[in-house]
Amino acid sequence: MTTKLRAGILGATGVVGQRFIQLLEHHPQFEVTALAASDRSQGKNFREACTWRLPGEMPERVKQIVVQLPQPPLDCDFVFSSLPGEVAKDAEENFASAGYPVISNSSSHRMAPDVPLLIPEVNYDHVALIDAQRKIRRYDRGFIVTNPNCSAIVIVMALAPLHAKFVIQSCIVTTMQALSGAGYPGVASLDATDNVIPFIGGEEEKIEAETLKLLGVASDGSIENASIEMSAQCNRVNVTDGHMASIRVKLKSRVSINEIQQALAAFTSVPQELRLHSAPAWPIIVREETDRPQPRLDRDAGNGMSVTVGRLTPDKVLDYRFVALGHNTIRGAAGAAILNAELLVARGYL
Amino acid sequence: MTTKLRAGILGATGVVGQRFIQLLEHHPQFEVTALAASDRSQGKNFREACTWRLPGEMPERVKQIVVQLPQPPLDCDFVFSSLPGEVAKDAEENFASAGYPVISNSSSHRMAPDVPLLIPEVNYDHVALIDAQRKIRRYDRGFIVTNPNCSAIVIVMALAPLHAKFVIQSCIVTTMQALSGAGYPGVASLDATDNVIPFIGGEEEKIEAETLKLLGVASDGSIENASIEMSAQCNRVNVTDGHMASIRVKLKSRVSINEIQQALAAFTSVPQELRLHSAPAWPIIVREETDRPQPRLDRDAGNGMSVTVGRLTPDKVLDYRFVALGHNTIRGAAGAAILNAELLVARGYL
Amino acid sequence: MTTKLRAGILGATGVVGQRFIQLLEHHPQFEVTALAASDRSQGKNFREACTWRLPGEMPERVKQIVVQLPQPPLDCDFVFSSLPGEVAKDAEENFASAGYPVISNSSSHRMAPDVPLLIPEVNYDHVALIDAQRKIRRYDRGFIVTNPNCSAIVIVMALAPLHAKFVIQSCIVTTMQALSGAGYPGVASLDATDNVIPFIGGEEEKIEAETLKLLGVASDGSIENASIEMSAQCNRVNVTDGHMASIRVKLKSRVSINEIQQALAAFTSVPQELRLHSAPAWPIIVREETDRPQPRLDRDAGNGMSVTVGRLTPDKVLDYRFVALGHNTIRGAAGAAILNAELLVARGYL
Amino acid sequence: MTTKLRAGILGATGVVGQRFIQLLEHHPQFEVTALAASDRSQGKNFREACTWRLPGEMPERVKQIVVQLPQPPLDCDFVFSSLPGEVAKDAEENFASAGYPVISNSSSHRMAPDVPLLIPEVNYDHVALIDAQRKIRRYDRGFIVTNPNCSAIVIVMALAPLHAKFVIQSCIVTTMQALSGAGYPGVASLDATDNVIPFIGGEEEKIEAETLKLLGVASDGSIENASIEMSAQCNRVNVTDGHMASIRVKLKSRVSINEIQQALAAFTSVPQELRLHSAPAWPIIVREETDRPQPRLDRDAGNGMSVTVGRLTPDKVLDYRFVALGHNTIRGAAGAAILNAELLVARGYL
Repeated sequence: MTTKLRAGILGATGVVGQRFIQLLEHHPQFEVTALAASDRSQGKNFREACTWRLPGEMPERVKQIVVQLPQPPLDCDFVFSSLPGEVAKDAEENFASAGYPVISNSSSHRMAPDVPLLIPEVNYDHVALIDAQRKIRRYDRGFIVTNPNCSAIVIVMALAPLHAKFVIQSCIVTTMQALSGAGYPGVASLDATDNVIPFIGGEEEKIEAETLKLLGVASDGSIENASIEMSAQCNRVNVTDGHMASIRVKLKSRVSINEIQQALAAFTSVPQELRLHSAPAWPIIVREETDRPQPRLDRDAGNGMSVTVGRLTPDKVLDYRFVALGHNTIRGAAGAAILNAELLVARGYL
Repeated sequence: MTTKLRAGILGATGVVGQRFIQLLEHHPQFEVTALAASDRSQGKNFREACTWRLPGEMPERVKQIVVQLPQPPLDCDFVFSSLPGEVAKDAEENFASAGYPVISNSSSHRMAPDVPLLIPEVNYDHVALIDAQRKIRRYDRGFIVTNPNCSAIVIVMALAPLHAKFVIQSCIVTTMQALSGAGYPGVASLDATDNVIPFIGGEEEKIEAETLKLLGVASDGSIENASIEMSAQCNRVNVTDGHMASIRVKLKSRVSINEIQQALAAFTSVPQELRLHSAPAWPIIVREETDRPQPRLDRDAGNGMSVTVGRLTPDKVLDYRFVALGHNTIRGAAGAAILNAELLVARGYL
Repeated sequence: MTTKLRAGILGATGVVGQRFIQLLEHHPQFEVTALAASDRSQGKNFREACTWRLPGEMPERVKQIVVQLPQPPLDCDFVFSSLPGEVAKDAEENFASAGYPVISNSSSHRMAPDVPLLIPEVNYDHVALIDAQRKIRRYDRGFIVTNPNCSAIVIVMALAPLHAKFVIQSCIVTTMQALSGAGYPGVASLDATDNVIPFIGGEEEKIEAETLKLLGVASDGSIENASIEMSAQCNRVNVTDGHMASIRVKLKSRVSINEIQQALAAFTSVPQELRLHSAPAWPIIVREETDRPQPRLDRDAGNGMSVTVGRLTPDKVLDYRFVALGHNTIRGAAGAAILNAELLVARGYL
Repeated sequence: MTTKLRAGILGATGVVGQRFIQLLEHHPQFEVTALAASDRSQGKNFREACTWRLPGEMPERVKQIVVQLPQPPLDCDFVFSSLPGEVAKDAEENFASAGYPVISNSSSHRMAPDVPLLIPEVNYDHVALIDAQRKIRRYDRGFIVTNPNCSAIVIVMALAPLHAKFVIQSCIVTTMQALSGAGYPGVASLDATDNVIPFIGGEEEKIEAETLKLLGVASDGSIENASIEMSAQCNRVNVTDGHMASIRVKLKSRVSINEIQQALAAFTSVPQELRLHSAPAWPIIVREETDRPQPRLDRDAGNGMSVTVGRLTPDKVLDYRFVALGHNTIRGAAGAAILNAELLVARGYL
């Protein structure tokens, strides 16, 4: 007898949707029972509707599921959403209103004051916003929980233990982001090959804003943003998966480099204590080789759920600098949402 | 009757050596008459000694020149040097002692107090160090002039007009550098493909140190370094040519973004006034598209001698940020040295 | 007083359209006076309508030209067309009917029996079809002339001297084609990076069919196809420009490898005799290094109009094999059409 | 109590050596107990001696093993060898003479008449050569078994069922091979990026020769080569892992495309019957999508041990053509040798 929760995937045919399906194939708590998409694939079974673009095969169990419109009802207990921004807002609200918990990777509701923007290792206590949200929006069983932008997750994972211990005053980030972050077809190959594009639409604003909410303090059903001066400049590089960020921080406390390194390397949190299925043993892996992290070598660390940090060194303008890397479609998207769902199960919301 | 100066190339078989030969093929003032290399190619003619790795053919006129050891005498009036660091120091001193002006792209003498580290648009007056150098080192006709590291040139070209007008206090640079910067064979393809390497040996130190000397003030035969807090973090990306830098600056003066843009776009200097052969009409090209500069599209601007700047915007931690790009083996190496030689001709040193 | 012929560009905003504009910027016989496109850019001036994607700047003279619909009348003496296949057929016929010579890079009319499929070095005498075409289609001053598919040109350039001297019986081709052959945005970067795609829609059929027409014999206003067994398998590789083909041939005559090499290396034809502006001195460059041709090093040979052949060797199944490379958007597209136009001027058709 | 066979790795620090260690980390029959290398790493423990270049971490159990010279004795029951060609010949003979079975991925002994060149699915019965070899070479317990070149394996896997059923008369192969096939540092990134290299030293000869031995018939302690006309032209493309081959075949029998497809898709052999640990369920996976196989999507099929075939179609010169792809450092190297060892255990030789 299965006691797994039944999950629907909104945006199932996209790059992140496919990652959801791949990561859930053998999940002990969730099983995929419904698929929806906003493209013109409705009515076909998934095998026909979807061109599978991940290494490995489309899991057998989803091949015969008929793709639906992204609107309730769907045959599931809750939904994961990776709908495109323009359709996500209404669709996700419709599902929440209809009683479905919505665990979203889309950007539409991230900055809404009553919606948790959640990284379980960082701000697990922000789940408390759900209660406020239900009251405000008159949701019954439903609610909306989001995970951050794929770059913001990588950056904030590395910042969180430093902010908790030493208080970050300023942070300057320069990203080198992977092609899969733009979805499919995404970046034209003529723009990617032998090239770097120093611009990603909306990305710098998202990183700057989401970081403050993520590191903010939850109280009385709302979040007080962290007061950090935050600067992000984003570049697209010719890498398939793995977002990298060159990060400088200015700290309130005067701390040694050993304290920084220790704070990063020893960091564990609630998902590790709860032994959540997708939680990596070490959320942050600190490497001491001079030339790491590298996307091709480190993106799959912790099954794609660990952030790898290297090149930690004092900085002549701010206090310290380092380089952080994470898998943008696993820790930065589908894996992030699944870990959120696992936390919500543990907290009794799912 | 030719009145061209006769140039020798030290390190002729390397990537930068080949660029020297290519750029000098039709030069109005210089002709290549001697080639030397520190590898085992001496005694062969250049056609046999050198595997030509640039697009286009090896120029006819150098094919029959026999490659020499990099030591005087050579059949030429002066030498360009792109010898590897370990052999450059002694070899260049030997040539200077023997009466040859040495226009070097190597790093060995860059930071010596009596050696000009020269960008003709930026610190043309540093040529005055030559007189001091000749006294100190008892050189007669010979001397050593250097050009900066390939990233430092790109960065300092963009900083120079801002420092001259508004005084830079702090500068944070994150580079994304091309593969050709590592020479040949240089970076292994398995490290380059689908990857970024967040480390280039010695590069961060060079950028931080050379910038201060380049923007320093010459007086009495020495340079007083600029007092700028300078931070550089360097990355190797999968691009053949074109070093890119994400730059933030904090200025002493409070200036508007229009003043910044104007200072960059209107910048011309002595090489433009003197109409030096290799000087681009515009040393800095400011682009307003949201997604420029890009290596593949902008590296050849001004025949590879212009630096392209884009994405100028206020920054939340420092004052402004922008992205600068230049061709690392032209403006950043061989073209830089040739422009130095042209300035030295105009100033009567060659 | 200008006596240049006035050219319109149909499909001006696309990758090949931009190449037309770039290659015609300083052309001695043609000047661009009209631009048309089938996208939604009509009514804007070209500067606004077109995102310029080639290295170098959009030429000044076209920036203010207002983009028209691709239908007559246009302010020009003749048109170059690189319209997408689906709109090219009718549009080109409309222009020809309205009296405009149409020099097309599109595929729509290539295989029509009364339309010359022209490579000036190979089948210059096929221009005679124009007379028949005018009769059949009741065109007055107008006509349609096409150039082959970008791979077919490269392949047939190399085959032509061999077929003329030794008669090719069978030919097996495996291509490795550049990304720019798919236009813009074309191939998704996620498909290109760290990958090869062993399929290009319609390409194998085009190569197989066009080769037979190109090497066919014109007589009485029609072409008798060459009788060659022709097999093509096409792959897309991660290269920006430059189509490469591994070619095996079985010949009717028994010939030595020296004869083959000589036939290729010595090949010149009518465009070289007529000194047409875009004709390369050597249509085929034979290289003897073991590892050439290479796209990055050889695509620009002859200003992108030469085909480079290397690795000529006996083959154990057919008679000989070799590798050929050409620039797919210059010799394979815009440059091909411009050379066609130059031939038509010389022959009195333009 | 462990009953695992104790394996030594010769060439442990190289790309293939690291794959051996990775693939053996959790192997049920073998455990790594000794490491040797021909570089200057002897005497250090493996953690210090080896820069780990594969995604994922160096396995814990090998970190403290001290690297030895590649000469007997070594603390193991048999050795896997991926030594460079120049040292492999003598070193492997020394181990075999000293009583160690040598399972080699090196090329030195592949074509020796008394050495099995083995693909367990294809020519498992060639193991019988071991007995002859022991007599000829007066080996006692020791022997040498080899696996083919990384491209030859992929090609011959696909040819084997066709040759067995329909008899191949001629075969024309054009390869597009991955960078990892050249080891580390291997191909320079400047040669790989935006480029294809139409040459791999010795590769065409190896493919042509090894194929005939692999598909030959063992009798009386020797192999009678298959009589196939075999032509290979090899290209290096910008792909990290996964060798691809465009293959045409001419068959003795007249067969339908369905028979070809069926022969490929239904192919299983002795390793599948014996359920060898590393044997994939399906040695050949036939895909029907128009654009598969692709290296990035298909190289890991069957844990890197399956060969994927697609684009099967009639050919106008030979009879049929198709594209085959396999993982060059797994099925093409370390995985191949490990499967050989598993077969040898099953056959009582290990």
